[in-house]
Amino acid sequence: MPNREAAIAYAQAHRQQSLDDLKTLTRIPSISTLPEHRPDIERAAEWLAAQLQALGFERVAVLPTAGHPVVYGQWLKAGPDAPTVLFYGHYDVQPVDPLELWQSPPFEPREDGDNLYARGVSDMKGQVVAHLKAVEAMIRTSGLPINLKYLIEGEEEIGSPNLEAFIADHKELLACDFCLNGDAGILAPDLPSITYALRGLAYFEIRVQGPAGDLHSGVFGGAVDNPAQVLCQLIAGMRDDQGRITLPGFYDHVRPLSEEERAELAQLPQTEEWWRKQAGVKALFGEAGYTPLERATARPTLDVNGLLSGFTGKGAKTVLPARAMAKLSMRLVPDQTPEEVYEGLRAYLEANAPPTVTWELDHLVSCRPAIIDRNSPAVQAASQALEAVWGKRPLFARQGGTVPVVAQIKELLGVDSLMLGFILPDDNLHAPNEKFHLPNFFRGIETYIHFTHNLVA
Amino acid sequence: MPNREAAIAYAQAHRQQSLDDLKTLTRIPSISTLPEHRPDIERAAEWLAAQLQALGFERVAVLPTAGHPVVYGQWLKAGPDAPTVLFYGHYDVQPVDPLELWQSPPFEPREDGDNLYARGVSDMKGQVVAHLKAVEAMIRTSGLPINLKYLIEGEEEIGSPNLEAFIADHKELLACDFCLNGDAGILAPDLPSITYALRGLAYFEIRVQGPAGDLHSGVFGGAVDNPAQVLCQLIAGMRDDQGRITLPGFYDHVRPLSEEERAELAQLPQTEEWWRKQAGVKALFGEAGYTPLERATARPTLDVNGLLSGFTGKGAKTVLPARAMAKLSMRLVPDQTPEEVYEGLRAYLEANAPPTVTWELDHLVSCRPAIIDRNSPAVQAASQALEAVWGKRPLFARQGGTVPVVAQIKELLGVDSLMLGFILPDDNLHAPNEKFHLPNFFRGIETYIHFTHNLVA
Repeated sequence: MPNREAAIAYAQAHRQQSLDDLKTLTRIPSISTLPEHRPDIERAAEWLAAQLQALGFERVAVLPTAGHPVVYGQWLKAGPDAPTVLFYGHYDVQPVDPLELWQSPPFEPREDGDNLYARGVSDMKGQVVAHLKAVEAMIRTSGLPINLKYLIEGEEEIGSPNLEAFIADHKELLACDFCLNGDAGILAPDLPSITYALRGLAYFEIRVQGPAGDLHSGVFGGAVDNPAQVLCQLIAGMRDDQGRITLPGFYDHVRPLSEEERAELAQLPQTEEWWRKQAGVKALFGEAGYTPLERATARPTLDVNGLLSGFTGKGAKTVLPARAMAKLSMRLVPDQTPEEVYEGLRAYLEANAPPTVTWELDHLVSCRPAIIDRNSPAVQAASQALEAVWGKRPLFARQGGTVPVVAQIKELLGVDSLMLGFILPDDNLHAPNEKFHLPNFFRGIETYIHFTHNLVA
Repeated sequence: MPNREAAIAYAQAHRQQSLDDLKTLTRIPSISTLPEHRPDIERAAEWLAAQLQALGFERVAVLPTAGHPVVYGQWLKAGPDAPTVLFYGHYDVQPVDPLELWQSPPFEPREDGDNLYARGVSDMKGQVVAHLKAVEAMIRTSGLPINLKYLIEGEEEIGSPNLEAFIADHKELLACDFCLNGDAGILAPDLPSITYALRGLAYFEIRVQGPAGDLHSGVFGGAVDNPAQVLCQLIAGMRDDQGRITLPGFYDHVRPLSEEERAELAQLPQTEEWWRKQAGVKALFGEAGYTPLERATARPTLDVNGLLSGFTGKGAKTVLPARAMAKLSMRLVPDQTPEEVYEGLRAYLEANAPPTVTWELDHLVSCRPAIIDRNSPAVQAASQALEAVWGKRPLFARQGGTVPVVAQIKELLGVDSLMLGFILPDDNLHAPNEKFHLPNFFRGIETYIHFTHNLVA
């Protein structure tokens, strides 16, 4: 019989051991982008595999990819009637530069009050160890009541270049009812929250070619169209004065926000003032009829990410440039697809680019948006787990950014991902003095225990 | 008594000597931008001063500036009733790289058919020597019938950084009835022409600042305005679909083209097809109601010279840029001023920049447009001189580019400049294998003789 109280008691009794293990893992400088840290990558993977072995997991392996290996292990002892959860995590970390801004060495974990400082401690070794410790607490007491598979990669911080192929090659091994993605956070120490939707991404490069070569603007200016001006016109025309994107069909498959959803989002603490301060702007702008939070997380957008044309150095050069380039991306929400917005953008350019120029459009990055039903068993289990530990109902949030693995798992394994992790907004991810809030670490362990039990309650 | 025929006969009899002297001057590598050529700069200046001395000019001097010196000499023996002409020229030349593209060493003048190949031979040692040889022919025969001052600088190819101060410091010395600027050309060997108007220039840099720093476009995109998009909107709004500039007051002081002037410009050989081929574009664009030639020479324009914002490398970076920059310039026609278009641009930005951004506007370069009355004695004298030598009436052309010294002389000395020189469009100015068409050199000497005599006829 599952006994959650026994597991919680075990976890509380073993906090020091859990903390020590987290420190052990964060001492391994598993920086994925630096080739000289390849041995550390392997040490981190082996350390995780050893933990899974010690817990009695089966098929534990450090599986090779074209890059850094994936740690795998499975527990199928709960039987075919119990749900099967795939835990996604990563054991690699960001580089540490600028090193001089760290107050202590990044791979010598330092406790200071409620925080533990170390590179990778919140992104995301803290979540991985918290989940392992929750599983340990259950296994060492009344048992793990669900089937569980671990997929812990070593290339997340370099864009997971080999993960999609790995998942595609291991579809059966990774088959599950849903994915639990621990690479997530909550809004504040006293504000538990669940991210139930992620925006997708479609990233483009547009190149406009005017004259065959750069021309003298005195000799040709006025008689020959200017590709930089044409590009500006094209970009300007992609948005109206209400902040709506004008590309054909852009909103056709946008799932509208329900009144209930909007009411829930309105409970989140990000006020207009918060957005203004965070961005450092004097005034906000966005799609009419929506709050800044809705605009940034639940509505699709178009941003210019880069512009380049002609002479950009100091001073003056009277050139009529031959070409102009823009990087342009759209954040997508369910049920938009990167393919359909690409078609819309192409149709817009075909209809609006003047005959004075030629143009090319490259589709550089595609990631579908993701959403998980807030009434699904997984979300309900997570919500109740957070409420049990924090003593308050969690807030429901959508995230403006993109988590490609969620889209890949949806596409290749056909399952949704539940984002459940404990990173705080001020944990200095990817920055000096990365930290993890230790009360969140211990609450995280208990949350994962409750969550697991809720799945079979 | 002035005797033009005697001077012409002298010039024709001394062609070989004229050519030898041109070769001598072009052998001096007077590259103004390279410090190691400073001794050559001085040799070229001294050589010119020696020519003036030998001709009997007074106050001949190599006058220092903060940079390279100015060669000065005057001939006032024609008396107070004769006109006083200031000849402007320069003795410095462009660098020669890429040297490997030259078919013969750039400072070893090489005759090949009708052409003499050497760096600086057409820009503009050929015109300087042609004028000196015309003056010599007159002085050695019936005398020089006008007063003449030479102002030959050594920094034209580096933007004449010290010329304005020099003119301002020598206003009395340089006082004249008009300036004869030899740094000019004709349309083709058999198409004599006079450039009677130059466009001015106002060059700006606009910087738009959005957020305090670069933001993650996933986290903030949609809620925070994008300064690159704002810049595109601002630029797009500066021009309407008829190719007219929409900045307030932009056309207020534009002198309209008369029907007579348009009819004359229509005789020039630059067809639409010519412009398309020269620019390498499939279609032209410009202000409605004007020909490409009128748009490029007699109408004001606005061009984007450069654009820079955000990420411009290979691939994708999901940044919402903090700032965006454009270099923007306008070519001005009489009677626009750089100051008034600056005010118009500033007013436009004040009226149209949204409250989501801040902006800065720098005025980098100013040059007034210039025009000389086609019915003035100077232009009539030039026209008749060209007709006498070429056997056909010259065409009247306007130039789209800017010649700052013309504006400076107008402002500081209060006189117009007559552009009269013999460079051809295919003379490879600033490029490898610069050449001068020798028939133009000899005709140029005779044209300057006729021109001088016409002034007192």
